[in-house]
Amino acid sequence: MTVKQLSLPELTAACRELGVPGVGLWREPVQQYGVASAAKLVRDAGLTVTTLCRGGFLTAIDPAERAAALADNRAAVDEAATLGTDTLVLVSGGLPAGSKDLHGARERIADALAELGPYAADHGVRLAIEPLHPMYAADRCVISTLTQALDLAERFPAEQVGVAVDTYHIWWDDRAPAEVARAGEGGRIHTFQLADWTTPLPAGVLNGRGQIGDGAVDMREWRERVDAAGYRGPIEVELFNEALWARDGKEVLRETAERFALHAL
Amino acid sequence: MTVKQLSLPELTAACRELGVPGVGLWREPVQQYGVASAAKLVRDAGLTVTTLCRGGFLTAIDPAERAAALADNRAAVDEAATLGTDTLVLVSGGLPAGSKDLHGARERIADALAELGPYAADHGVRLAIEPLHPMYAADRCVISTLTQALDLAERFPAEQVGVAVDTYHIWWDDRAPAEVARAGEGGRIHTFQLADWTTPLPAGVLNGRGQIGDGAVDMREWRERVDAAGYRGPIEVELFNEALWARDGKEVLRETAERFALHAL
Repeated sequence: MTVKQLSLPELTAACRELGVPGVGLWREPVQQYGVASAAKLVRDAGLTVTTLCRGGFLTAIDPAERAAALADNRAAVDEAATLGTDTLVLVSGGLPAGSKDLHGARERIADALAELGPYAADHGVRLAIEPLHPMYAADRCVISTLTQALDLAERFPAEQVGVAVDTYHIWWDDRAPAEVARAGEGGRIHTFQLADWTTPLPAGVLNGRGQIGDGAVDMREWRERVDAAGYRGPIEVELFNEALWARDGKEVLRETAERFALHAL
Repeated sequence: MTVKQLSLPELTAACRELGVPGVGLWREPVQQYGVASAAKLVRDAGLTVTTLCRGGFLTAIDPAERAAALADNRAAVDEAATLGTDTLVLVSGGLPAGSKDLHGARERIADALAELGPYAADHGVRLAIEPLHPMYAADRCVISTLTQALDLAERFPAEQVGVAVDTYHIWWDDRAPAEVARAGEGGRIHTFQLADWTTPLPAGVLNGRGQIGDGAVDMREWRERVDAAGYRGPIEVELFNEALWARDGKEVLRETAERFALHAL
């Protein structure tokens, strides 16, 4: 998504050329390209698929909506398995229209995970609950902190459900460092993502994630924390940023790799 | 600030006419009108000044900036005392330019409170640390949760330092209900403010606070929590909203009073 201006063949070629060993994919471009074809493309380029984004949106009250969400998440698990990644990232969902019940929404996510966790594990896929920044609590994700994500994940086996640690969403939270350690102890850090926090935020607050090093987040400190928690998996840089999307994708990928090395290693 | 399109005389007349018994004031319009004149205006209208907004911005590293901030906060205390309110609300400040050190910024706030708390108490004024939504952590306020605000306030006597409980900033936080109880037990709820959470957020995320009842926040539940915590002080509605500012101020004030009665009482 950081370089969504690139087609999948452009992306895999650029990763290969720049020495980026893995890539996190989103469902929509993969579906458009064809899931099996995308899997072959990435495999032939010698890359691993780090994660698939995203499942989730599990807070619906309406039974038909709920059934559709579960079916879509099973499809996402199937796609992840086809792509050869072991991790499906979940954006859990916001409040249904007219509802003000955060607790109820969180419990419906738990109920859905009880169905999806075993299905995912049967396909060699782990679910990664991504706590989203509290500014998304109403409309995208009622899981707002790493604490909440872990409280939820720990109701299930770690090989079914863990968490996504993303600096953009948790950097402000003074409890998050201890929760990273807790997640590591439980083997529940299923992916680690970087984005910087820059201001002012754009309207809608979706596409203002900063390039590594441009913002308020101490990237090296977070990387070291996640290291210290025992995480040895891939590190993803996930930027939604209109300015980056307007530039040459390969140049943005090169810059991102350089910034990662400069600020996080 | 909810009806900043009204002059102070228009505001006090409208409050009196609508039966609104108190008003929270901001420093800038009060300074423009003259602090003593504003105090007389409000007193003559039979209104109380609930709080003065705002002091704070106490995170500077530079000694000259820091001294200026402390001086400005003492002036704010003086203004609060002149206005006859017992509460000065603090927006604590964000990260200094180039800094990524949230912990250090929070400790500088603590150092400043150690100087300002006794000064305020000597003038009959309590400082109210307002935790601001985490989306403001970088540029406005590194105190992002009621837990952090209370941890900080409790280093000082309650008659010097307490907290501002504002639904807009804390509604998403599953720990906040317990923290409201904790704040009440310690006599540290120094004001209670309402605003609703509506989406999409506008660019800059400052002026998108929703009218009571328009958003995701269960106002009655929060009002009952604060009641149960023993708070018996004024309840303020503080909306920063371009659409409300574009309307007739008196009409907005009437609507706000109606919404308060409908959704919070």
